[in-house]
Amino acid sequence: MDTSLYINGTLDRYTNGSVSIPRMFGKIALEEAVGSTLWDAYQTLPVTAQVAGYKGVPFDDSIGADIISRLNNVPARITSMDQSGIGYVIVSLTSPGIEGVFDTANATRLATASNDEMYKNYVQAYPDRFGFFATVPMQDPEAAATELERAVTQLGAKGVLINGYSQIGSADNYTVQYLDEKACDPFWKKVDELNVPVYLHPRPPPPSQQLLYGNGAYPMLAHAAYGFGAETAGHALRLMLSGLFDRYPNVQIILGHCAESLPFLIHRIDTRLAIGVPGADGPYNKTMKHYLQNNFYATLAGIRRLSTVRDTIEEMGEDRVMFSVDYPYESNEDAADWFDYVEGLGVATKEKLAWRNAERIFNVTSG
Amino acid sequence: MDTSLYINGTLDRYTNGSVSIPRMFGKIALEEAVGSTLWDAYQTLPVTAQVAGYKGVPFDDSIGADIISRLNNVPARITSMDQSGIGYVIVSLTSPGIEGVFDTANATRLATASNDEMYKNYVQAYPDRFGFFATVPMQDPEAAATELERAVTQLGAKGVLINGYSQIGSADNYTVQYLDEKACDPFWKKVDELNVPVYLHPRPPPPSQQLLYGNGAYPMLAHAAYGFGAETAGHALRLMLSGLFDRYPNVQIILGHCAESLPFLIHRIDTRLAIGVPGADGPYNKTMKHYLQNNFYATLAGIRRLSTVRDTIEEMGEDRVMFSVDYPYESNEDAADWFDYVEGLGVATKEKLAWRNAERIFNVTSG
Amino acid sequence: MDTSLYINGTLDRYTNGSVSIPRMFGKIALEEAVGSTLWDAYQTLPVTAQVAGYKGVPFDDSIGADIISRLNNVPARITSMDQSGIGYVIVSLTSPGIEGVFDTANATRLATASNDEMYKNYVQAYPDRFGFFATVPMQDPEAAATELERAVTQLGAKGVLINGYSQIGSADNYTVQYLDEKACDPFWKKVDELNVPVYLHPRPPPPSQQLLYGNGAYPMLAHAAYGFGAETAGHALRLMLSGLFDRYPNVQIILGHCAESLPFLIHRIDTRLAIGVPGADGPYNKTMKHYLQNNFYATLAGIRRLSTVRDTIEEMGEDRVMFSVDYPYESNEDAADWFDYVEGLGVATKEKLAWRNAERIFNVTSG
Amino acid sequence: MDTSLYINGTLDRYTNGSVSIPRMFGKIALEEAVGSTLWDAYQTLPVTAQVAGYKGVPFDDSIGADIISRLNNVPARITSMDQSGIGYVIVSLTSPGIEGVFDTANATRLATASNDEMYKNYVQAYPDRFGFFATVPMQDPEAAATELERAVTQLGAKGVLINGYSQIGSADNYTVQYLDEKACDPFWKKVDELNVPVYLHPRPPPPSQQLLYGNGAYPMLAHAAYGFGAETAGHALRLMLSGLFDRYPNVQIILGHCAESLPFLIHRIDTRLAIGVPGADGPYNKTMKHYLQNNFYATLAGIRRLSTVRDTIEEMGEDRVMFSVDYPYESNEDAADWFDYVEGLGVATKEKLAWRNAERIFNVTSG
Repeated sequence: MDTSLYINGTLDRYTNGSVSIPRMFGKIALEEAVGSTLWDAYQTLPVTAQVAGYKGVPFDDSIGADIISRLNNVPARITSMDQSGIGYVIVSLTSPGIEGVFDTANATRLATASNDEMYKNYVQAYPDRFGFFATVPMQDPEAAATELERAVTQLGAKGVLINGYSQIGSADNYTVQYLDEKACDPFWKKVDELNVPVYLHPRPPPPSQQLLYGNGAYPMLAHAAYGFGAETAGHALRLMLSGLFDRYPNVQIILGHCAESLPFLIHRIDTRLAIGVPGADGPYNKTMKHYLQNNFYATLAGIRRLSTVRDTIEEMGEDRVMFSVDYPYESNEDAADWFDYVEGLGVATKEKLAWRNAERIFNVTSG
Repeated sequence: MDTSLYINGTLDRYTNGSVSIPRMFGKIALEEAVGSTLWDAYQTLPVTAQVAGYKGVPFDDSIGADIISRLNNVPARITSMDQSGIGYVIVSLTSPGIEGVFDTANATRLATASNDEMYKNYVQAYPDRFGFFATVPMQDPEAAATELERAVTQLGAKGVLINGYSQIGSADNYTVQYLDEKACDPFWKKVDELNVPVYLHPRPPPPSQQLLYGNGAYPMLAHAAYGFGAETAGHALRLMLSGLFDRYPNVQIILGHCAESLPFLIHRIDTRLAIGVPGADGPYNKTMKHYLQNNFYATLAGIRRLSTVRDTIEEMGEDRVMFSVDYPYESNEDAADWFDYVEGLGVATKEKLAWRNAERIFNVTSG
Repeated sequence: MDTSLYINGTLDRYTNGSVSIPRMFGKIALEEAVGSTLWDAYQTLPVTAQVAGYKGVPFDDSIGADIISRLNNVPARITSMDQSGIGYVIVSLTSPGIEGVFDTANATRLATASNDEMYKNYVQAYPDRFGFFATVPMQDPEAAATELERAVTQLGAKGVLINGYSQIGSADNYTVQYLDEKACDPFWKKVDELNVPVYLHPRPPPPSQQLLYGNGAYPMLAHAAYGFGAETAGHALRLMLSGLFDRYPNVQIILGHCAESLPFLIHRIDTRLAIGVPGADGPYNKTMKHYLQNNFYATLAGIRRLSTVRDTIEEMGEDRVMFSVDYPYESNEDAADWFDYVEGLGVATKEKLAWRNAERIFNVTSG
Repeated sequence: MDTSLYINGTLDRYTNGSVSIPRMFGKIALEEAVGSTLWDAYQTLPVTAQVAGYKGVPFDDSIGADIISRLNNVPARITSMDQSGIGYVIVSLTSPGIEGVFDTANATRLATASNDEMYKNYVQAYPDRFGFFATVPMQDPEAAATELERAVTQLGAKGVLINGYSQIGSADNYTVQYLDEKACDPFWKKVDELNVPVYLHPRPPPPSQQLLYGNGAYPMLAHAAYGFGAETAGHALRLMLSGLFDRYPNVQIILGHCAESLPFLIHRIDTRLAIGVPGADGPYNKTMKHYLQNNFYATLAGIRRLSTVRDTIEEMGEDRVMFSVDYPYESNEDAADWFDYVEGLGVATKEKLAWRNAERIFNVTSG
């Protein structure tokens, strides 16, 4: 008999004001950023600009430095994963990534090189601990399709991560392209053919649409706290409204941050759309709710609140929600301590979120 | 003995595919729009433009006509309230209202006239059924304060409703003013002094910030379904970040649509802000969560989903959440049928949402 | 484009005080009682005694007559299933069934005959609509094992249903045998070998233990409303404490009525047991929670309350909870109207409860 | 500005496998047992017998000794309260207390002496930290009413706690009296007049009704883990069925352990009762649900599971649920660590459970 179930001696105890955490080992995380050594040579938004200095983001300097230092520090990442019970991570190139590269030719070269680098530094070096999402040059959707195919079939990429809209042109004169636009169809055709998910990652709204900047009153940081997610939710709605999921009903999109609040709002979006003129707001055939429940996965990246997670599960189903962190922008340890301890999800549900769903979707195992 | 509790004769029955609703009578609703007969003479956005034709919103024509016809139809409104178990309604001028009037002098005159009209048509005519939220000319915050005082002390206004930012100038050349801007302080000083709540109602984001218009791909309706709320959530965050609630800790803001998704997201907004430089993102002293829990009420206007409501209650407390409809843009009957029947909130909680909270906050009773 | 998503003409409507139900077709139900034509000849508790007249149960006469009339009325059952969206039912002999037969030889003969009858009247006659749970003579566990094997392998029984303890002896002098007693091991060995679930159905506590009869103050009906379930929960705990699931870790028990409140209480049962002397309260090796989560399924028979269902799912996992009715003691239509309409479970979860779990567990399909 | 909101330097950290608890100070606890120095002289069930040795309960010896040592150790209790953030406790005489005293005259004398002792040792000595529930001799309901009045009006008792049924007679020949019996009416008349709540505390079912003892297979401890609560739930139902709350609609009963699972089951109890003959199962006029929602409070004594608490709140309302521990049978520290940290209840709700409800109901304050 396993007597470890029993309390011996006394129910009384001295509290040190903390509770120990029953660490769940083997978690899988999906929204985990890495940098690139290739970027500094280019005249576009550098990866590091996202962290410190981008339009004067008032990040605490030491936090900024700390995050940058950890983007490419593989041993530190593995140590942190070990401490946090994270067995397997699918890495991806940090925002804005290739999508922020103005020049299409540069974007294409950088995407290929970045994929090779992620493969070599993570997947090949630690096949039991890392997979990767490819990055592709959406500035040229045909090239994006080609690179996606190479990354998936030759490098074993688990899918592709896109940082929102792409900037095409030059820093002085560029257009913004969303994924629902007609030009992107070759990309979606390939996604459908390869049957891999697309992680739609937040990026700041285009400068002209930056909500909290209203009259320049508040800095980028406040914007990041809310505006990035709103931009991404809007982008996801554009995909739904465009009829993409009617043309490709098997395409699967992953959204972080519990689907960027769409579970909270989707029923209302549908009731509002239903009072319109059929067809006037997009060539879609089903409800937004249907698409959210059949063409989207959600991750917990950045989320540490029970009701937000329950709300997401209730809308999307517990087979479509997955743990994630957003390392190094969030702490593996904080995310794991919260997730491993939190009540109210049930053991079976937590195991699905922690690893079972990711194992099924990405065909991986996490010991 | 009350034998109505008992089933007689058989447990078997023929189902007609519907369930009867135990109507909860005496509900109070707060986000209920009325039009104005005064508007057509002015060269600004007419009230009706919001409903049909505004930048080509593809509303179904008959729905648009139906909504317009009901904005000012008091008997039809009362009939609908009776059928829906809504005992008391606080009406307000429909969006964009005075906030969309470019010329400050016009705005001031229209606000006064509109308040007089709402008082006469609703409160004076049916004192047991209607209260009203004042409208004020935020284009001139001192004038707004003066009109607010008049409306509250002389007409019995239950508070004030503001349709987001105000447009100041002319249709060709105007600026946009948010409520957190320094110029608005005289208004907030008066709000604090009068101790009445401010309903922050959605309106479309400024044209330059219209997310879903990205490249003009999708119409206004899709925008309305998501973008209005995102704009309003951002506006509410601006208020928090501005330190308004540190200066006026008793000021209370009402947000519709279950606080525009802030309950789902507020914990994450706080963790993101906490990595910044103190003071750089606004002169606030407390967490956004603290403000949401102490300076905001939420209504159910437009919401008919249990998990969204539960999530909101969990964050804000069941004493800060109230039933509402958004008539005539939403159906009183649909809102009531959903609310009166829905399980999972508990009897005591439903009574608070339905009337007890509003009775306490607005000092009204609803038979 | 499917324009049925759109509302045409008006948001206003006349409410008739009811909401229509989006009927979920293809539900599967498992705690569904049938009678037997074989019983009247025996001098033991007749099946019908359970319904009307048993120790003076003050059932409404017409309800009692109605229930009896429907126990064996197959066409009425199918009509009711059709109206309720129930595609497939696993029937079982109504309580107390064979377990209430004092004489062991009679019990054995009746069990065999009852299984043959259920097979012929339901499974053979309507193979697409009905399966059955075998009944076995637990008065002789070896005979029970033999009959179980015959029923499963020759008649296709989907498992076995046991009405709690068995009475062994004569009406004047009998003993009561619970399923955890040593004598029952041959039965469990066969259950394990055949890999079929055991539905543990409530029956009244033994006369000496009838809680609400305290001083004879209240009638059987009050007892049925609470005491039957308490007896069954206690019986289930006896199975756990006996070490049964350590010896046969694959054995699966089905409990009705959301596992008879064990999800609500199991954590407390474990903390209380943990302060005892290991081994003194039974030769079990794991926590009660572990057994509940790994060796039990729950059905919704008799349950129409969201929080009870959510609580059960949270403890046992949504893959272990299944719809059921308890026809004809409950109304198919009422159960279906509640289940099909209720919010807060999520579409994916409801489909699992409605049919997916049962399809997987019993290897059936329900069109 | 309060910069404590900010993280400085790094998001990365070394986890020690624990999370710190934001201790909620000022909690109030209500099901907190004390012993009596008066008991050893009597030939009835001693208080200590409940803990160790009662019918061979296999408590771990050192746990039993530890619990006994803490029943009357006031300084240790206060230290534990301080460590756990419990500001105020309402103590009561431990089970079975006066209810287990066979001789009526002894019961009456002991009740008076026990109340005087609790008043002197707790309330008078530490008025800011302790109140008490009176104990009364239900063996003589008139005497119970008299003693209740004295305890409330002269000693400031916050109400009365009853350990289930009372044993009247001698150890060899006694009857069992439940609180719904006609003889108890003088007690209820006084309770109603004094307007104080009655805590209905579990005790073991009468020996003849001990469910899990079925055939003597399992010991008292297993019974305690489930059977005590089932007995108490049944006793509460007897009160409802007896029409007590129709005669005294203001009488309020407190149940521990989240109302002994009644929130989970009460809807089903009502649907089962509704098929009976009106009046046959008791002279009650309303549903059991109505009584539970209007005549009962629940405490968390012994409960550390979120879904159980949420389920209870949903049925009874958050204004009727209160924190408690069951010290020294449970650990103050464990209860506080769980309650203070658990998510999913919301800040406002937790404050009500922690102290606001108890402050209102018992007219106390807890700093």
